[in-house]
Amino acid sequence: MGFPIYDYPNSGKAFERALKVIPSGIYGHQGPSEGCYIPREAFPYYSSRAKGTRFWDIDSNEYIDYMCGYGPNVLGYCDETVDAAALNQLKKENCVTIPSAIMVDFAELLVDTVACADWAFFAKNGGDVTTLAVMTARAATRRKKIIFFKGYYHGVAPWTQKLDYPGVLEDDVRNNLYVEFNDYPALAEAVSENRGKIAAIIAQPYMHGNFYDNELPAEGFWRDVRALCDKEGIVLIIDDVRAGFRLDLKGSDHYYGFKADLICFCKALANGYNMSALCGAEALKDSVSSISYTGSYWMSAVPFAAGIATINKLKELDAPELFRRLGLRLTNGLKHAADSLGFHLVVSGEPALFYLRLADDDSLMLHQKWIAACVRRGVFFTSHHNHFINAALTEADVDKTIEIAADALEAVKQGKI
Amino acid sequence: MGFPIYDYPNSGKAFERALKVIPSGIYGHQGPSEGCYIPREAFPYYSSRAKGTRFWDIDSNEYIDYMCGYGPNVLGYCDETVDAAALNQLKKENCVTIPSAIMVDFAELLVDTVACADWAFFAKNGGDVTTLAVMTARAATRRKKIIFFKGYYHGVAPWTQKLDYPGVLEDDVRNNLYVEFNDYPALAEAVSENRGKIAAIIAQPYMHGNFYDNELPAEGFWRDVRALCDKEGIVLIIDDVRAGFRLDLKGSDHYYGFKADLICFCKALANGYNMSALCGAEALKDSVSSISYTGSYWMSAVPFAAGIATINKLKELDAPELFRRLGLRLTNGLKHAADSLGFHLVVSGEPALFYLRLADDDSLMLHQKWIAACVRRGVFFTSHHNHFINAALTEADVDKTIEIAADALEAVKQGKI
Repeated sequence: MGFPIYDYPNSGKAFERALKVIPSGIYGHQGPSEGCYIPREAFPYYSSRAKGTRFWDIDSNEYIDYMCGYGPNVLGYCDETVDAAALNQLKKENCVTIPSAIMVDFAELLVDTVACADWAFFAKNGGDVTTLAVMTARAATRRKKIIFFKGYYHGVAPWTQKLDYPGVLEDDVRNNLYVEFNDYPALAEAVSENRGKIAAIIAQPYMHGNFYDNELPAEGFWRDVRALCDKEGIVLIIDDVRAGFRLDLKGSDHYYGFKADLICFCKALANGYNMSALCGAEALKDSVSSISYTGSYWMSAVPFAAGIATINKLKELDAPELFRRLGLRLTNGLKHAADSLGFHLVVSGEPALFYLRLADDDSLMLHQKWIAACVRRGVFFTSHHNHFINAALTEADVDKTIEIAADALEAVKQGKI
Repeated sequence: MGFPIYDYPNSGKAFERALKVIPSGIYGHQGPSEGCYIPREAFPYYSSRAKGTRFWDIDSNEYIDYMCGYGPNVLGYCDETVDAAALNQLKKENCVTIPSAIMVDFAELLVDTVACADWAFFAKNGGDVTTLAVMTARAATRRKKIIFFKGYYHGVAPWTQKLDYPGVLEDDVRNNLYVEFNDYPALAEAVSENRGKIAAIIAQPYMHGNFYDNELPAEGFWRDVRALCDKEGIVLIIDDVRAGFRLDLKGSDHYYGFKADLICFCKALANGYNMSALCGAEALKDSVSSISYTGSYWMSAVPFAAGIATINKLKELDAPELFRRLGLRLTNGLKHAADSLGFHLVVSGEPALFYLRLADDDSLMLHQKWIAACVRRGVFFTSHHNHFINAALTEADVDKTIEIAADALEAVKQGKI
C-alpha cells in the first residue's frame, strides 16, 4: 500500500464555476448525468496537461490514462511527429475558402490503406459520417428502414436515439429496427418481414457498448450478414468510429474477414486533431455525391496533415499488433491480480479496447469502488465503458498499472477506496 | 486593363486526382455540384497558403479573399495573436479524457459577451448546435413543430433539408412549417393554425440566403416575433452561425433590438479553429442539460484557447464597426464603378456580409461573368453567396478591389472575362 491517494480541491472549485455557465457543468461521458464516473467524487474533473500515455489534473495528480480522450489519443498525447506535421501546415494555412491539396493526399492515403475504401469523404464528428452513411444508403436504395443492433452507439443525432429521449420524436426513429447482435436468425427474420424496405444495416464491428460485457462477433456471423446484404440489396454500414485503426489499419471489417459497403472513421484518424471520414465502395460514390453535405471547417488543412502523419506512424509501428500485445499483457495481469485476491474479473472485447467487470457483486458497486480506487491512485479507468490502449504506453506502464490496480483491489477488500 | 489574368493548370491536375478518391472531387460550396463558382473553369480549386486577408492558390495566384473560408476567417488568416494562444495551449494539451479548465474560462467569456447568454454549450459544427437547439425546444415545450423562414440554411442534417432531397424521408421533415421572412401576418397565421404545437421558430437574424438578394428585417418584425413567442410559449432560436460576431459582439439579436431564447454560433468564434456554441436563457438550461449530447473532440482545449483570443481581439478592435465601415467603403465603391460603366449593381444584406447582384441581366450570366473576371484578376468573390469582411482587410485592399472589379466589368463589357 505505497500509493498516495488523490484529492481534487481545484477540480471541485472549477466545477462550481462551470455549473453556473455550462449546462450540467460538464456534458458527455465526463458529466454528472452519465454513469461512467461513479462515485463522482473519486474522479478529477479537469486536466491541465498531457504527454504520451499520461495526463495531469488541475490538482497536479498524475494518471496513466486508459481512456485516451475516449479514443482520439492513439499515438500518445502531444505526439511529436503529428504535432510537427500539424504545425508545419498551420504556418501555411488551415481553414481557407478553397481546400488545400493536402485533402487529396489524405484521401489517397485512406483509399490505399482501408481495404473497402474506393473513396473518402471528410467531416468532423463520428455522427456526421454515420448520418451521411444512412442518408447515402437511403439515397442509393430508395428504401427507408435501418437495422440497428441493440446496445449500439452511433452518435447523438435524433435518428440514433430512443423514442423516450428528450427532444426526440417518433418521426425521428420510426424507420429504425432493432435486433440482437450475433443473432443471425433474428436478423434474417427482420429482413424477411421487411423485404425491399431495408436500406441499411448499421453496426459496430463488435458490440462494445457501455454497461455490459462487450461481445465479439460469433463465428460466421459477419459472413452471413454480408451474404444477406448482397442477396437483399442492403447497404452494410460499419461504424468503426471507436475501433477503427485499433484492430487493423485496413478496417475492422477486414479484421473480421468481411467487407463493408460504407465504413465510418473518426477518433483514431488524426491523434486528437478534429476529423472524421466516411469511406466506401465505388458503387455508392454517385449516391454520396448526390448529397450536398458540408460544414464550416470540413476542409481545414491542419487535421489532414495530422491525419497523414498519424496513419503513417500507425503503419510504421504496426500499432494494432502493439495494442493487442499491451492489452493482453494488461488484462492478463489484472485478471491474475484479481484471482490472487479472491475476486473474479471478467475481461471482454478486444484487448486493444478492453472492457472490465468485477463479477463478484451483481450491483456493480464493488466494481465501481475498485475503479474509483484505481483512479485515486493514478490509473485512469472508468466504470462502465471500454478502455483504450495508445502507442505511447510501455510494458513498464502496464506493469505499474497492474500493481496499482492490485493495491486498489486490496483497499476495496479492506473497505476503503 | 493592367491586371494579369490567372490560369489554373495545377488546380486542374489536383482536381483530376481528387475525382478518383473523393465524392464530387470537392464537396460543399466549392464543389462542381454547387452553383457558387460559375463558370467553374474561372475559379481555382486548391489553396497553398493564406495570410491576413489573402490566400494563394497552388498555381501561385494571389487573391484578396472575400469569402473568408465561408466565415471562419474573421481576424485574418494565420492571425498571430490567435495562433500564439493556440500553440501555447497545444504544448500543454488538446483532446484529453477530461476537459481542460479553459472550457470554463471560455464559457464565462461568452456569457459575459453575448447579451442573451446565461450559459454556453460547445460543439463542433454549426449544425450540431442548430440540432441541439431544436431538440432543446422540443424537450422544453413537449411540442413537435418548428417554423422556418423560406430561404433558410441551418446545416445539412436531414431535418434541415427538403423532402425531395437525396436520403431525406418525409419523417425527417414532417414537423417543419415554412413561412416568408418579414411576413408577420403569415407567421401569426401559421402559429394560430397550430396553437400549442409549435416548439420553436428558427431563423437567421436576417435573410442571407444564396441565389437571392439578401433581406434585412422589416421595422418591428423581430419585436412582433418576440412578442408572439412570449405569448404562445414558443422558443425563439436565432441561427447566428454566419452573422454572429460580425454585426454585434453581443449577438445579432441584440443588434436588431430583441433577445433570442437560444442562439447558435460557429464560424467567427475562433478564427478557423474548429468549434461551435449554443448559448441560451436560464429558463432552458435544465432542458438542454437533460439531453446527453457530445462528440469525440467537443472538449478539446486548443479551440477554446483560440476562441478566447479571438473574442478578446474582436472586442479590442471593435470589429463589427470595422466590418461595417470597410463593407460600406467597398460596396459603395463597387456601385459607383458599376454606375460609371453603365451597369446596375444591387448590393444587399449587411455591409459586413454584403451580397452582390448585377441587375442588367435576368439570367445572372452577366453577373457570373463579372465575378469570374474578378477572380481571374485576384479578387475572390463568388457568384451567388454573401461575402465576408475580415479584420485584416485594409482600406488600400478595398480600393485595389474596386479597381480590379471595375477592370473586370470593363472586360465583361468588351465580351471578355
